[in-house]
Amino acid sequence: MTLLESIDGPRDLDALSEEELAELAAEIRGFLVEAVSRTGGHLGPNLGVVELSIALHRVFDSPADRILWDTGHQSYVHKLLTGRRDFSGLRTRGGLSGYPSRAESDHDIIENSHASTVLGWADGLARADALRGSGDHVVAVTGDGALTGGMAWEALNNIAAADRPLVIVVNDNERSYSPTIGGLANHLATLRTTNEYERVLAWGKGVLRQTPVVGKPLYESLHGAKKGFKDAVNPQGMFEDLGLKYLGPIDGHDIAAVTSALRRAKRFAGPVLVHCLTEKGRGYEPALADTTDHFHTVARMDPTTCEPVEPAGGPSWTSVFGTEMVRIGAERPDVVAVTAAMLHPVGLAPFAEAYPDRIHDVGIAEQHATVSAAGMATGGLHPVVALYATFLGRAFDQLLMDVALHGCGVTFVLDRAGVTGPDGASHHGMWDLSVLQCVPGLRIAAPRDAERLREELREAVGVADAPTVLRLPKATVGEPLAALRREGGMDVLREDGTRDVLLVAVGAMAPVCLEAAGLLAESGVGTTVVDPRWVKPVDPALAPLAERYRAVAVVEDGVRAGGVGSAVGDALREAGCDVPLCTVGLPRQFLPHAKRGELLAEHGLTPSGVAGRIGATLARREERERARRERWEREARASEGSVA
Amino acid sequence: MTLLESIDGPRDLDALSEEELAELAAEIRGFLVEAVSRTGGHLGPNLGVVELSIALHRVFDSPADRILWDTGHQSYVHKLLTGRRDFSGLRTRGGLSGYPSRAESDHDIIENSHASTVLGWADGLARADALRGSGDHVVAVTGDGALTGGMAWEALNNIAAADRPLVIVVNDNERSYSPTIGGLANHLATLRTTNEYERVLAWGKGVLRQTPVVGKPLYESLHGAKKGFKDAVNPQGMFEDLGLKYLGPIDGHDIAAVTSALRRAKRFAGPVLVHCLTEKGRGYEPALADTTDHFHTVARMDPTTCEPVEPAGGPSWTSVFGTEMVRIGAERPDVVAVTAAMLHPVGLAPFAEAYPDRIHDVGIAEQHATVSAAGMATGGLHPVVALYATFLGRAFDQLLMDVALHGCGVTFVLDRAGVTGPDGASHHGMWDLSVLQCVPGLRIAAPRDAERLREELREAVGVADAPTVLRLPKATVGEPLAALRREGGMDVLREDGTRDVLLVAVGAMAPVCLEAAGLLAESGVGTTVVDPRWVKPVDPALAPLAERYRAVAVVEDGVRAGGVGSAVGDALREAGCDVPLCTVGLPRQFLPHAKRGELLAEHGLTPSGVAGRIGATLARREERERARRERWEREARASEGSVA
Repeated sequence: MTLLESIDGPRDLDALSEEELAELAAEIRGFLVEAVSRTGGHLGPNLGVVELSIALHRVFDSPADRILWDTGHQSYVHKLLTGRRDFSGLRTRGGLSGYPSRAESDHDIIENSHASTVLGWADGLARADALRGSGDHVVAVTGDGALTGGMAWEALNNIAAADRPLVIVVNDNERSYSPTIGGLANHLATLRTTNEYERVLAWGKGVLRQTPVVGKPLYESLHGAKKGFKDAVNPQGMFEDLGLKYLGPIDGHDIAAVTSALRRAKRFAGPVLVHCLTEKGRGYEPALADTTDHFHTVARMDPTTCEPVEPAGGPSWTSVFGTEMVRIGAERPDVVAVTAAMLHPVGLAPFAEAYPDRIHDVGIAEQHATVSAAGMATGGLHPVVALYATFLGRAFDQLLMDVALHGCGVTFVLDRAGVTGPDGASHHGMWDLSVLQCVPGLRIAAPRDAERLREELREAVGVADAPTVLRLPKATVGEPLAALRREGGMDVLREDGTRDVLLVAVGAMAPVCLEAAGLLAESGVGTTVVDPRWVKPVDPALAPLAERYRAVAVVEDGVRAGGVGSAVGDALREAGCDVPLCTVGLPRQFLPHAKRGELLAEHGLTPSGVAGRIGATLARREERERARRERWEREARASEGSVA
Repeated sequence: MTLLESIDGPRDLDALSEEELAELAAEIRGFLVEAVSRTGGHLGPNLGVVELSIALHRVFDSPADRILWDTGHQSYVHKLLTGRRDFSGLRTRGGLSGYPSRAESDHDIIENSHASTVLGWADGLARADALRGSGDHVVAVTGDGALTGGMAWEALNNIAAADRPLVIVVNDNERSYSPTIGGLANHLATLRTTNEYERVLAWGKGVLRQTPVVGKPLYESLHGAKKGFKDAVNPQGMFEDLGLKYLGPIDGHDIAAVTSALRRAKRFAGPVLVHCLTEKGRGYEPALADTTDHFHTVARMDPTTCEPVEPAGGPSWTSVFGTEMVRIGAERPDVVAVTAAMLHPVGLAPFAEAYPDRIHDVGIAEQHATVSAAGMATGGLHPVVALYATFLGRAFDQLLMDVALHGCGVTFVLDRAGVTGPDGASHHGMWDLSVLQCVPGLRIAAPRDAERLREELREAVGVADAPTVLRLPKATVGEPLAALRREGGMDVLREDGTRDVLLVAVGAMAPVCLEAAGLLAESGVGTTVVDPRWVKPVDPALAPLAERYRAVAVVEDGVRAGGVGSAVGDALREAGCDVPLCTVGLPRQFLPHAKRGELLAEHGLTPSGVAGRIGATLARREERERARRERWEREARASEGSVA
């Protein structure tokens, strides 16, 4: 039996010696590399928090003490230490979640894996503890990247003033996804630098080894040197300025050092921040060698060669966007790009390489990405803000009140829109089409293929006085789907001999809709399939066209409540068109982690699912018409009778 | 001619001597007291920035240099200095906006008056300037209150790292609306205190006079003393830690001192923060004497006695909520209240007085209000979060991903929902009913009268596993409207002999709907008026009830796109009910400032407007039915013909 196999819960750590804990750490690293290679998942971040997680569970008594993870993708070691060793189904239907999950364990509190939330949760839990007189502890584990989010500041501002016990662990690996951005990052660098200056001899080589210096901007080093004297007197800097006690920096891979710091923090009567330095990808050479993101997320791969197990499909929507942005950048010197700590995942790395003075990585700060884009647009530029669709909720107010209210020409590109898959409820980008319906002047496009993406992106950056949104799924882009003709602004993709059904395909649902039309044709139902290209506002040509059909259907990869189907329903009603409408989309629920295809199938977003829903709508229409007719025939007979 | 009358633009300041500038400041104060008393408006904040505004316009060359105001309610002096002296129609239809307005002047850039945005705008404008090689300046005027918002942090983090020239003026009056909250406020207090310690002799009595000490918490003073030594060496504190040059604190009422500091800041090649101390209500005794908010906003009043010109109407929705919260607090020790720097305006002051350990003012930080509420709910409390409806957009992601995803029992009370009036586009609370439709598990109530508010608030705080929202208009609460009976969960308010129209009245639209029903009755149309009480989800009893009518109408004080009417349309469609539906609400537009009644009337939210829309819907239905019938009769005749 390995040491890891002997751990069924955190208290099993109590009996282990320092040497055994080190051995356990090594076992966990081996387990992670092996298990995550098999399933795919967040590898680099978890390799970085092995010792930190062990120390946390030694010092605190979970679940009475609540350990909160921001973001949750760094919770794999926590899962192992709380009795969850079956990683075989990680991030697949029915298997372990890639994030904390209350359904899995009482040791898990926060499932939302949008960043920067954990300090707010901790403040709330600490307030509840104080009011209820509980003596249990709250420990918030956050990262240097997550601290760039505004929520973290709002929480720190409150935590600092309240003086309630609360332990904040900053897991500082100098990167969120890629290197962390901004004044705070520079300040953390200063704290690190100062420490080296002051304590490097006492700390020994461990500190240097785990503080990456490759690629560290010269500015940070100079800044650190300039501030050296002051911080030698007062190394805690801004955290202490706010009123937080500061401990650190600590070597996050030294279990004894972290344990000791956490014990001091636990005894402290107010809020305390423990600054731990860790190394993303620690102990796994291929991850350390990858300077892009230290294997932040990996696909299924061979753990030795790191070759992917599954061959890559065609190009992704993301890469088509990224390539076209480079072309647009060459033609339009006023086009700039904005990312919120996601340069590579949203496809903007080639643009950044080509136009280094026109890329703005604002850190994990969607609000700032959006409001600064309003400023840039007002200053005569056209910003393209690329975000994950699910993170747009962070910037709703800024999109409405700064960008739209001021008529700013800003293009938002929402990557990973619709069902995403293995990351589960907080990552499905299924809300945008509903939430954005009320925004005045905003136009939304959902490209159906690569050509349309390029075309609609160019239309979007051509709009100078209003925001536009493009949404792209997390998938490989399919075959081009040519249009037969235009109807208003809509592309007609298929037109059968009879006009039974008008099928409105939103973006990546086009291939599904075309196949559904094929199935309907087999049962004698003629379908016209249109891609509206711009799904908001609803094309004025839609209602007049719909009048000529027996039924209309809208198929979208987003929540049905308030989505495109609902907007089409409103538009038909307002045009006085009472053709029956069926809408196929996602239910108003938080969907679990599973493959994209599995979830789409479960909710009827397949050719047979769509055809079946349309068939039922047509049948219901016939039934309703027959009932009406019978009523009128009865009325007519009665009227004839009374006349006679 | 007064000095003020000689100022048609900022450059007219250049010729004035120091003495004349002081005289101008006095004239402006007199003008503000007199003008704002006549119309109502933001008085205290503008009295505080007279000298600061003069100095800004002396040093910077607006509009080439862009002066940005956060929030915009402190822009009255700026308006006066940029040629807008006709305040007679302030905040009324066709008159001056209470905020900056691009339609009014090229000197105005940002109209959105949600707080904390200005640093993000400034960063964007500075980025655009840098890329375009412009040498014009960007000046962001923000307040100590606005700095508590997360957006400010995200922006500071980016501004500090970028090293582009940008001047940030912190107008520090120790209060946003009421005293500013949090670690940052303590830090600013330290900077103030340090300054007194170091420079009080040189500065003279001016500083002491304008630094209010009444009500300053003991903690701040002690905290300041404790940190005195360090800050005597390094007074700039956390701003410099982030990488911003710090100048200050400056007496914000000393034009020469502010001018000199701004000139230094303007010459600086990187981002610089100028910390100005001002006094809210400066120079007007009644404002200074008001310790609640120093006349933050005033209604029309006599400037000498400060008695309101118009008699107060009945109690407001806000006060009914506040009173009931005190009762609930007595019965339920687990109920806590949360406000984002709006303790008095949202009616929570009595609760705070009664239960000081159960009120949480988080500062201007709606994200933190929401996520910390999720934490408190998880910790066993039931938080009631009271926000202005328009500010909920700031917390959409947290409501969805923290509160709803985790099934937290949190009650949100949205004050000033619907058309608000004089504050214009960024303050109308007209988006909530649309934006929230997609949130799983969330229930929304819109009380129609005071009794329902009390009743539905109690239902809301009784829900332990999901969020609820109550929305209240900015108005006095009307007469109680008794229900005839319940239908499902809906209150039936009126039921005529014939069943022509089912009229669904959302919240405060109930009296309008009842009057509309009266008008319809006069023309022989029988109406049933229901208050659904909970408007989301749509009551399952609604569709079966609707089947019995010739038309359904939904009347709501919110944007129609995606609102309650739209959701009712979806629900009817899904139930297979094809009764014609008409929805009456607000258009998808940013509405200007005007009286609530004026805007409601303009958009048909009046008895005659509603009755007219319903009449048209009925007529359209008859027309459609007749056309159908004629078609069938033709078909029947043709079929008889072919049989014969």
